[in-house]
Amino acid sequence: MFNRKLVFTALLAASTSMTAVADTVETERHKVTVSTFADGFTNPWGMTFLPDNSVLVTERSGDLYWVSENGQYREKISGTPEVVAKSQGGLLDVTIDPDFESNQWVYISYSEPAQDGGKGNSTAVMRAKLVDKAFTDKEVIFRQAPKYESNAHFGSRLVFSPEGHLFVTLGDRYSRMDDAQTLDNHHGKVVRIWPDGSIPEDNPFVGQDNALDEIWSYGHRNVQGADIHPDTGELWTVEHGPQGGDEVNIPKAGKNYGWPEITYGVDYGGAIISEDAVKEGMEQPFYYWVPSIATAGATFYTGDAFPDWKGDFFVAALKSSLVARLDLYEGRMMHEERLFEDTIDARIRDINQGPDGFLYLLTDESNGSILQIKPAD
Amino acid sequence: MFNRKLVFTALLAASTSMTAVADTVETERHKVTVSTFADGFTNPWGMTFLPDNSVLVTERSGDLYWVSENGQYREKISGTPEVVAKSQGGLLDVTIDPDFESNQWVYISYSEPAQDGGKGNSTAVMRAKLVDKAFTDKEVIFRQAPKYESNAHFGSRLVFSPEGHLFVTLGDRYSRMDDAQTLDNHHGKVVRIWPDGSIPEDNPFVGQDNALDEIWSYGHRNVQGADIHPDTGELWTVEHGPQGGDEVNIPKAGKNYGWPEITYGVDYGGAIISEDAVKEGMEQPFYYWVPSIATAGATFYTGDAFPDWKGDFFVAALKSSLVARLDLYEGRMMHEERLFEDTIDARIRDINQGPDGFLYLLTDESNGSILQIKPAD
Ligand SMILES: [Ca+2]
Ligand SMILES: [Ca+2]
Repeated sequence: MFNRKLVFTALLAASTSMTAVADTVETERHKVTVSTFADGFTNPWGMTFLPDNSVLVTERSGDLYWVSENGQYREKISGTPEVVAKSQGGLLDVTIDPDFESNQWVYISYSEPAQDGGKGNSTAVMRAKLVDKAFTDKEVIFRQAPKYESNAHFGSRLVFSPEGHLFVTLGDRYSRMDDAQTLDNHHGKVVRIWPDGSIPEDNPFVGQDNALDEIWSYGHRNVQGADIHPDTGELWTVEHGPQGGDEVNIPKAGKNYGWPEITYGVDYGGAIISEDAVKEGMEQPFYYWVPSIATAGATFYTGDAFPDWKGDFFVAALKSSLVARLDLYEGRMMHEERLFEDTIDARIRDINQGPDGFLYLLTDESNGSILQIKPAD
Repeated sequence: MFNRKLVFTALLAASTSMTAVADTVETERHKVTVSTFADGFTNPWGMTFLPDNSVLVTERSGDLYWVSENGQYREKISGTPEVVAKSQGGLLDVTIDPDFESNQWVYISYSEPAQDGGKGNSTAVMRAKLVDKAFTDKEVIFRQAPKYESNAHFGSRLVFSPEGHLFVTLGDRYSRMDDAQTLDNHHGKVVRIWPDGSIPEDNPFVGQDNALDEIWSYGHRNVQGADIHPDTGELWTVEHGPQGGDEVNIPKAGKNYGWPEITYGVDYGGAIISEDAVKEGMEQPFYYWVPSIATAGATFYTGDAFPDWKGDFFVAALKSSLVARLDLYEGRMMHEERLFEDTIDARIRDINQGPDGFLYLLTDESNGSILQIKPAD
């Protein structure tokens, strides 16, 4: 009679601060409920909805799960690649092809070991066809170069542009931060490729010596949030800063976003990274946080379930268990609201809008959950 | 040997949380000291620097003081008008003519009693020549109409445009909030006049029936902060919202800023003023605060003493004893920093930049002070 997974879920839920029963939260513009849609994931990192409203969820340790539309059933996808699951590394983001219904392509980003058996690693992007809960026709379409021995700052998010490009947001590998300012590597870059890994001809550094053709923008630290603006079609990114200095940027082709030459943050422990926050030839952020909230995933809200949130930019944060709502109006930042600080006690790694217009949060915990945010009646 | 006022000042200082000894504060971009420049004022409300670096300070109860350049001597200005010093009413802002050195005109705003001896009052603006610490050649150049029996929401700030207009920011008189949406009165308006009180020909409602010629913009609640943007020459205002909904606006000729039809706030106690925050034909704020910080005076910083603050907009707040720094870049709001929350324990009514490039705060307390903010060595 009882579904074993449901019971499992209920037991786990009872042991955490989140309960299966919905919490009601009065936000500035909407009264919402927060409830557990699915849980029992081990450090989930990325998620995406399929056209039938089911969900793909990554666990950092390397597993990819399919979760049914109602959150109650799940199945492990077979055939996923080996990942370097250490510290910040592992299986990271997941997204589907804009033409998924006809081509079944799924894209994942992950920390890939060096091909020569050495100790280095870097962020790679694989695509594969999802057929009967298995990966087939696997192709590695991007490899961050060079491989490097570090277990930190892999990025990453995967988002498609309206023209069909795939943006891959990357990290600076922490101890290679200066690489973010040079173009002969993919550290601290946003790259833009076609879904098969080929290079768009109009990428900004195509044909330039000592510059890698995949690069779209540079001077980034660790970009873990990205979405396309629903009206302008522009890429918006969120990068996790040092101590202070988390940033929202709108990366333009070939532009330099300054890290580590300019920053509003200091290093962990307070050491100065740069005295400068502004320098000619480097772009200022659209918005920044001091102190840091430890930003991760991000999404524009475009649904009808929360009319007063339409067009706003939502940023998930790890440190204070919050979601920052940036109230945007005609491209301007009018106000920041911090949601769920008192409701959710978990690191929020990703945020997505569901096909139902509700918001879904992914908590990066040893018993990680997908939380559903919907209007309270 | 001892100057009596100095001793008096030192004694008073010792009895408050501010001491004559400077407090050092680490802000995000600058290490600063906060010290008492002058104190012993009774609910000071507005201040302005004279060309010789001395200061004029209003007390809400009706007195206007001249304070010497070093803060140590003061003298009462004689000949100031009768004011309705009740609740929020009294002597409010003070500013000087752009040509003060040649014409000695000083402008003050204040709650003026009804001329017919009735119980009504409203904000008026007087100009007078300041000669030997006395007001002469007094002229009332503006009277907010209609007079009304209320002791709340008088505004006001006085600022000159680069073209020499005088902007007067007003309040909605609280119980007359709906008047802010109609043009046959000065409640909830920003008005623009010439320094002699005459009407600029190109004011937006000149020649329109049932609209007062002085009106520049409407739909405001209680505008207690204003300054001219140093690059664009545009007026920026700060209005004190209800519970939630303090706003920064950039009032344009003839535009409607929405109060009370739209607001991000609710009434004190939580009652709904309007369900709407956005409506066609009404302007959105540049920035807003929820919850309210209880905004008052405001200034752009244009000096050299704090290079990283250049171009930023500083807003004084009453409730949390803070100054909000809006970090602006190319007209965009990138970040809000809250200064002095842990250092100053007083309602901050006004903020000005001194001729020395330091910032000066006015604390609206029974023993109110001028506080000086300067770089720590
Ligand atoms: Ca940056
Ligand atoms: Ca408004």
